[in-house]
Amino acid sequence: MVVVMSPEATDAEIAHVVERVESVGGEAFVSKGVVRTIIGLVGDIDSFHGLNLRSLPGVADVHRISDPYKLVSRQHHPDRSTVWVGGRTKVPIGPDTFTFIAGPCAVESAQQTLEAAEMARAAGATVLRGGAFKPRTSPYAFQGLGLKGLEILASVSESTGMPVVTEVVDARDVTVVAEHADMLQVGTRNMANFGLLQAVGEVGKPVLLKRGMTATIEEWLMAAEYIAQRGNLDVVLCERGIRTFEESTRNTLDISAVPVVQATSHLPIIVDPSHAGGRRDLVVPLSRAAVAVGADGVIVDVHPDPENALCDGPQAVLGNDLRALAQSVRQLPPVVGRVAAAERVRR
Amino acid sequence: MVVVMSPEATDAEIAHVVERVESVGGEAFVSKGVVRTIIGLVGDIDSFHGLNLRSLPGVADVHRISDPYKLVSRQHHPDRSTVWVGGRTKVPIGPDTFTFIAGPCAVESAQQTLEAAEMARAAGATVLRGGAFKPRTSPYAFQGLGLKGLEILASVSESTGMPVVTEVVDARDVTVVAEHADMLQVGTRNMANFGLLQAVGEVGKPVLLKRGMTATIEEWLMAAEYIAQRGNLDVVLCERGIRTFEESTRNTLDISAVPVVQATSHLPIIVDPSHAGGRRDLVVPLSRAAVAVGADGVIVDVHPDPENALCDGPQAVLGNDLRALAQSVRQLPPVVGRVAAAERVRR
Amino acid sequence: MVVVMSPEATDAEIAHVVERVESVGGEAFVSKGVVRTIIGLVGDIDSFHGLNLRSLPGVADVHRISDPYKLVSRQHHPDRSTVWVGGRTKVPIGPDTFTFIAGPCAVESAQQTLEAAEMARAAGATVLRGGAFKPRTSPYAFQGLGLKGLEILASVSESTGMPVVTEVVDARDVTVVAEHADMLQVGTRNMANFGLLQAVGEVGKPVLLKRGMTATIEEWLMAAEYIAQRGNLDVVLCERGIRTFEESTRNTLDISAVPVVQATSHLPIIVDPSHAGGRRDLVVPLSRAAVAVGADGVIVDVHPDPENALCDGPQAVLGNDLRALAQSVRQLPPVVGRVAAAERVRR
Amino acid sequence: MVVVMSPEATDAEIAHVVERVESVGGEAFVSKGVVRTIIGLVGDIDSFHGLNLRSLPGVADVHRISDPYKLVSRQHHPDRSTVWVGGRTKVPIGPDTFTFIAGPCAVESAQQTLEAAEMARAAGATVLRGGAFKPRTSPYAFQGLGLKGLEILASVSESTGMPVVTEVVDARDVTVVAEHADMLQVGTRNMANFGLLQAVGEVGKPVLLKRGMTATIEEWLMAAEYIAQRGNLDVVLCERGIRTFEESTRNTLDISAVPVVQATSHLPIIVDPSHAGGRRDLVVPLSRAAVAVGADGVIVDVHPDPENALCDGPQAVLGNDLRALAQSVRQLPPVVGRVAAAERVRR
Repeated sequence: MVVVMSPEATDAEIAHVVERVESVGGEAFVSKGVVRTIIGLVGDIDSFHGLNLRSLPGVADVHRISDPYKLVSRQHHPDRSTVWVGGRTKVPIGPDTFTFIAGPCAVESAQQTLEAAEMARAAGATVLRGGAFKPRTSPYAFQGLGLKGLEILASVSESTGMPVVTEVVDARDVTVVAEHADMLQVGTRNMANFGLLQAVGEVGKPVLLKRGMTATIEEWLMAAEYIAQRGNLDVVLCERGIRTFEESTRNTLDISAVPVVQATSHLPIIVDPSHAGGRRDLVVPLSRAAVAVGADGVIVDVHPDPENALCDGPQAVLGNDLRALAQSVRQLPPVVGRVAAAERVRR
Repeated sequence: MVVVMSPEATDAEIAHVVERVESVGGEAFVSKGVVRTIIGLVGDIDSFHGLNLRSLPGVADVHRISDPYKLVSRQHHPDRSTVWVGGRTKVPIGPDTFTFIAGPCAVESAQQTLEAAEMARAAGATVLRGGAFKPRTSPYAFQGLGLKGLEILASVSESTGMPVVTEVVDARDVTVVAEHADMLQVGTRNMANFGLLQAVGEVGKPVLLKRGMTATIEEWLMAAEYIAQRGNLDVVLCERGIRTFEESTRNTLDISAVPVVQATSHLPIIVDPSHAGGRRDLVVPLSRAAVAVGADGVIVDVHPDPENALCDGPQAVLGNDLRALAQSVRQLPPVVGRVAAAERVRR
Repeated sequence: MVVVMSPEATDAEIAHVVERVESVGGEAFVSKGVVRTIIGLVGDIDSFHGLNLRSLPGVADVHRISDPYKLVSRQHHPDRSTVWVGGRTKVPIGPDTFTFIAGPCAVESAQQTLEAAEMARAAGATVLRGGAFKPRTSPYAFQGLGLKGLEILASVSESTGMPVVTEVVDARDVTVVAEHADMLQVGTRNMANFGLLQAVGEVGKPVLLKRGMTATIEEWLMAAEYIAQRGNLDVVLCERGIRTFEESTRNTLDISAVPVVQATSHLPIIVDPSHAGGRRDLVVPLSRAAVAVGADGVIVDVHPDPENALCDGPQAVLGNDLRALAQSVRQLPPVVGRVAAAERVRR
Repeated sequence: MVVVMSPEATDAEIAHVVERVESVGGEAFVSKGVVRTIIGLVGDIDSFHGLNLRSLPGVADVHRISDPYKLVSRQHHPDRSTVWVGGRTKVPIGPDTFTFIAGPCAVESAQQTLEAAEMARAAGATVLRGGAFKPRTSPYAFQGLGLKGLEILASVSESTGMPVVTEVVDARDVTVVAEHADMLQVGTRNMANFGLLQAVGEVGKPVLLKRGMTATIEEWLMAAEYIAQRGNLDVVLCERGIRTFEESTRNTLDISAVPVVQATSHLPIIVDPSHAGGRRDLVVPLSRAAVAVGADGVIVDVHPDPENALCDGPQAVLGNDLRALAQSVRQLPPVVGRVAAAERVRR
């Protein structure tokens, strides 16, 4: 940490900062400039936070210079992690493979879910996605089938052999979701719902943590830290677009987030091109970009009958687009040094 | 709703859209242009949503032309509402008054809370704020005193006669918070935590709903609609800054949100200048701006000893700033046609 | 400046940084932490920039700790400045007064401009605004009357006694605009057009510098520095809204920019509520907020016949709104310790 | 265009809108809903703009439903264009090829430029980039060598056989830049400098138009329309990152812009991974993403000695990164159906 004193700071104010830092066992290095004095702090950062340095007289600014997350950082865990998803069939998500996850945005019926799962599997997907609890902006929109949706997912998972990832939106539902699903998704609107993060951290299943649509990468990694701190390091991050001024896409896919995260965290990271763009015609090019940039996987909406979908029909891929997508996730990963996760599944 | 067909849309595709609209009891008015055809829909909007019009062949775009919220809209409730907060002492928040809410960001001890409450009351505040459950970006930061904090707040409320507003961050805590507080705050990170919104909608106490730091005004009003839909129309909105690229302030106070909300919703709206700016020196000018723009109140952080605050010390006002604030909230409201809420308190 | 070394930086890399800093006459203070080393630099910042410190091996980050602007900073010029606009009639814009500038968005005809000027003057305005060169997003939109517009403005200025501010969009036009107008406006789209900034810096007339709609406050002050560096310190800043995700207003008025700028720069700052909101119904509340927050003035669109305006008709005030505005700029400034500029005009 | 009337609009107000539309030769289709009336307009959009419909009494909103650009649109020009850059050696930028452009951010000396050009050519680049006029945020930063820089570029172009693209920042410099360079770049800060756009539109050389860092895609295409309208359709668009709240990268590369632009405009589009990320370690992954998403090329900063670069040293690639980049732009384009532009050069 670096404390920047204001140009008018007195010697007594500088000494006061030094004294406070030393009172919690830290060291303070003072550099007096012509205009300003800066003080470098060495020691335990958490104890410095308690000092409220920014409130001390004469202090102009405080710069943090190290990352605030620990368990999810690569600093003490330089090798990137692989998270295994599933029960009898285990699918890897990690640095050597490329994992294709697909399924309907929302579970609407047993038949629709099974058809979507078969479309997904035929296209090369190894993990099934599908929403039973849907967080919707409008209280008048379809909110998901709830428990019934979980049962459908579990049954389709059983019959197709695909592990299932599904969203949990309320801490009170974590147990029941964990009983039916192989991986719990925390959605973009709940990324900073800390009670929910702690609950999924305690339930013993891998977590897919979507980025808040307006969260910085650092805030996102801090959300992962909440889960990790409860003993669960099986967290996969998912970049799904951030909110910007651009209106031609629903969100702006922050493709740079993939290498940025990989440089600082050991957790796997995948991309959701469907929710990022909100447009069917962007799913294939954005999926290709995800493979090429080095993502560990993609998660894509498919639907057997988008015209009658109850949720996000306009972005579900099918037909030629699905064939192009299937081809891309087969051809591109080897060019960037990865194998399809399908080849590494453990049964 | 208006459906815009793509320039290549065929007559059959246009007819298909019309047919779907009519199948749910709507009317479709077709305007054929030289390049494009547009179709105006008349009827029940919710039923149109189920049609997934954007997925139909030949459809280029769908424009919604009416507001998606109903209960919180001024359309059928043209008079702006007043929400009364408190038990024996009732304080109004509404169009005729200006309500000054103040207190510490976090409840740290009985003494600190009482001192802050007395500072607040001396400066003219009629409602006490204070956090017992704190949503923090870092799992290593102070998370609040929890139940003990609620008890302190209830006790200080009793001794000062000031109703209390405090944040609830988890649907599982709603009941206990409602037992101790007069108004429940839903914070910026939880604005789209729909389970929490529904829970506070059912507990029978007024709600202070902060704007999500990256929520549009429409999304914010939809969050209020979630609460209203559970039978609770005693919702006060709070503008607290949005996330932008500007870095000199913690967030950017969207002062325009006040008249924009007042034009479309009957709910009261107040401003939080402390969290918007994140800087003590901005609290007074932003509070003045809030009064002048027509806000129904402000909510401000005060702390008897900011240097030792466990949370957000740098933005808590005291000394000269607090005196300037007290003066502003006394002098400015009458200039814009309001009285201080203190003069309308019911005991 | 503070250089943060990466955790893996070697002693040789640290020594190399120190050596480079000393090679340009600076001093380097090294603080070795448990994980990282930080190096505080003392000396001439401009010479440090040439070192490209961020490119040196072992360097993780470089934090600048002082403001990059000099001539426009309050550091060596603590008193806030007043800029006088006009020829025979001189109007102040500065810390003691509140200046009301009004006129049509675009000059369309002599009659429309004269009528708008008289509306403005009747409402209390002392400076006339009006655009002869209009920067338009579409090449097919009305681009302004050009030289003819300047002549109309000069003539209306003559007959009404109001000094004129008008926009210049091209460095090649600076001389002719300066011959006809009392103050040159640099618009939001040209805030980073450095050739234009230098040209207006050399022509000897006051400049109204609008904030780039996506410029940080620091970038904006650097743009003012470009003008100041050419010898012109008569610069008035104008906050006119920034681009954010919120769609209910054309831009988001960053009201906090007023006190933030006043804390670091001595230049006057005014607010443009018309272009910030893009809505007629917001002009009065945002103007009130501008007075209350401490702005040195406002600049407002008025038009005698908005329905037939060639530019931005929807935001031009008239009728009751103009009366409410006139009242606000008369009543509110004294409450916040200012007099109307009209009372300090020098003739 | 669709005009949405407010719920309170009277029949007379609706009739007035219809009458105005018909007065300029348009047709108006009225759809009366239960709550609101909407009016669909058919006819010449430019004539509708002059009506100022948003200002008419009773009008709540006006939705534009067609694209505002014409010459750059794919609507009447469905095949995507190829732009040829160079004199004796002509390099294509278009839908069948992938063009690698590289060189130093700024021209600093003849030797540095030649070395950078040879690095670039060795890595597979066919066009040389380099800045002689540099738009810098600070007036105290290196502003480029100007004319001398242009002469160096022309000489290096002659000796290497690589066509040159360089930035022009002022309309007064367009002629001299066009005399020395094969392609004129309009930078991000000047995207809305309409005088400059018109000047480069008239000079008869291809233009590289960077996206404004805060411009929507539509505004960017309108800027291209300004150039096209002056008779120059040889415009290549360059996505270079937009301004968002994320701070770990200098800007956020909007990778989706590539397929979005290609869906609506026939102009070629390339990506600048260097300025988007501002970090050397991101150049290779973002370049790979650019190829995979379907971009027509990339433009990359290289420097023989980044430690001593006068501009943007931290993002210039060299060594292993340059080798990885060279490999990617050779291996990936064929996988997505393109050939390297080097194979299609015309001499």
